[in-house]
Amino acid sequence: MKNHFIVVEGLEGAGKSTAINQIKQVLLDVGIKDVITTREPGGTPLAEQLRTLVKQGHPDEPLTDKAELLMLYAARVQLVENVIKPALAKGQWVVGDRHDMSSQAYQGGGRGMDTSLMQSLKETVLGEFAPSLTLYMDIDPEVGLARARGRGDLDRIEKMQLDFFERTRARYLALANDDPSVVVIDAGQSLDTVTAQIKTALENWLKQQTGV
Amino acid sequence: MKNHFIVVEGLEGAGKSTAINQIKQVLLDVGIKDVITTREPGGTPLAEQLRTLVKQGHPDEPLTDKAELLMLYAARVQLVENVIKPALAKGQWVVGDRHDMSSQAYQGGGRGMDTSLMQSLKETVLGEFAPSLTLYMDIDPEVGLARARGRGDLDRIEKMQLDFFERTRARYLALANDDPSVVVIDAGQSLDTVTAQIKTALENWLKQQTGV
Repeated sequence: MKNHFIVVEGLEGAGKSTAINQIKQVLLDVGIKDVITTREPGGTPLAEQLRTLVKQGHPDEPLTDKAELLMLYAARVQLVENVIKPALAKGQWVVGDRHDMSSQAYQGGGRGMDTSLMQSLKETVLGEFAPSLTLYMDIDPEVGLARARGRGDLDRIEKMQLDFFERTRARYLALANDDPSVVVIDAGQSLDTVTAQIKTALENWLKQQTGV
Repeated sequence: MKNHFIVVEGLEGAGKSTAINQIKQVLLDVGIKDVITTREPGGTPLAEQLRTLVKQGHPDEPLTDKAELLMLYAARVQLVENVIKPALAKGQWVVGDRHDMSSQAYQGGGRGMDTSLMQSLKETVLGEFAPSLTLYMDIDPEVGLARARGRGDLDRIEKMQLDFFERTRARYLALANDDPSVVVIDAGQSLDTVTAQIKTALENWLKQQTGV
C-alpha cells in the first residue's frame, strides 16, 4: 500500500459526503479508527480563504481560468504539505473530499485548459504524491445538479452551464479508465445500492493491500 | 516599441515610488498624459485579496514557498488580463510597481525555487507579454531595509533575513545583465542624482523608440 490516503471524487450532487461517511464506517469496522477527513479546495486556514475567493469570485472582476487554476493548486499545496502528509506520517488515515483529479476534470476537461500546464502544475506541486485509492462517484450532471440545487444557493462554479459538467464528467471517466487506482461507482443507483458498492469496493481493496 | 508598459523593480527601500513619480513626470513633459500605475502583487480587487494573504500569511499556518509563488502568479494573471492589457489596448501607458522580475528575483533568487517551475509559470501565465522597459533600482539590502523599516511595520516578506535579500539582489543584477530592456539605476546615490538618472534613462529610451 503506497499510503493511507483515499479520495472521493465526483460532480456536484454525486453523493460524496455519503460516500465519505460510508468509507469511515468500513474503516472503523476493520479497526481503523484514526481517520481524518479533508476537503478541497480548503482544509487549512489559508486554503479555506483561497476556497472562498475561488467559489465567490468578485462582483467587479472576472476570475480568469488561469488564476482559478493557480489558486486551486496553491490551496492544494497548503493542504498536502501542512495537513495530509503530516497526518499520514503520524500513521493516520486520510479521506479526502476531492483532490487533484477534480482539477484535471473541472479545469482540464470542463474549462479545456492546456494539458501541458495541468501536467506541469501537478508534477511541480505534488511530485509522486497521489492517493492510493479514489472512488469516483459517477452521476449524470442533470441528476447531480438537481440534487445540488435542492441544497440551496449555487456558487460560481455550480452555476456553469450543463455542457461544462458534461465535459467534466467525460474527463473524469477518461481519467478513471486510465488509472487502476480509481474505482467508478454508479451514483445514479439507489442509496442502498451505492452504499453497498462503496463498502464492497473498499473491503476488496483493503483485502488486496493486506493480503487477508 | 513593443508596448507602453514600463516597470520599476527593486528591493524594499530602493525608492520605487519616487521613481514612478519621476517617470510619470517625464512622460507628462513629453505630452503623454494618459498614464495609469499598477502595483504587484495586487492592482485588482481579487489580486489585492491575494496580496493580503501573501503579505500577512496566517498565524496558525506556514505559507509554503510553492503556494506563495502560485498565488503571486494568480494575482499577476488577474492584473495583466483585467487591467494592464485592456489599458494598453485603449492606448494608455502603464507604469508598474513590480512585475514578473520580482518573482524571478525574490522567489527564484531569494527563496531558491526551481528554475524550470519559474520558467513554466512565466510562459504559461504571460506568454510573450513583457514590459518594454524596466528600471531596476539597485540598492544594498542593508540600506534599503533600513529605509523600509523607517516607514513602519515590516510584513512577512520584509522580515526575511539579510541573506535572502542578498540573493534576491544578486538575481536582479544577473537578470538585468541578460536583458537589454532592463536599465540599472544605482539607487544608493543622492535623491537628486537618482532622479536625474531616471529622467535621462527614460528620455533616451523614448528617443530610441520614436527616432526623434
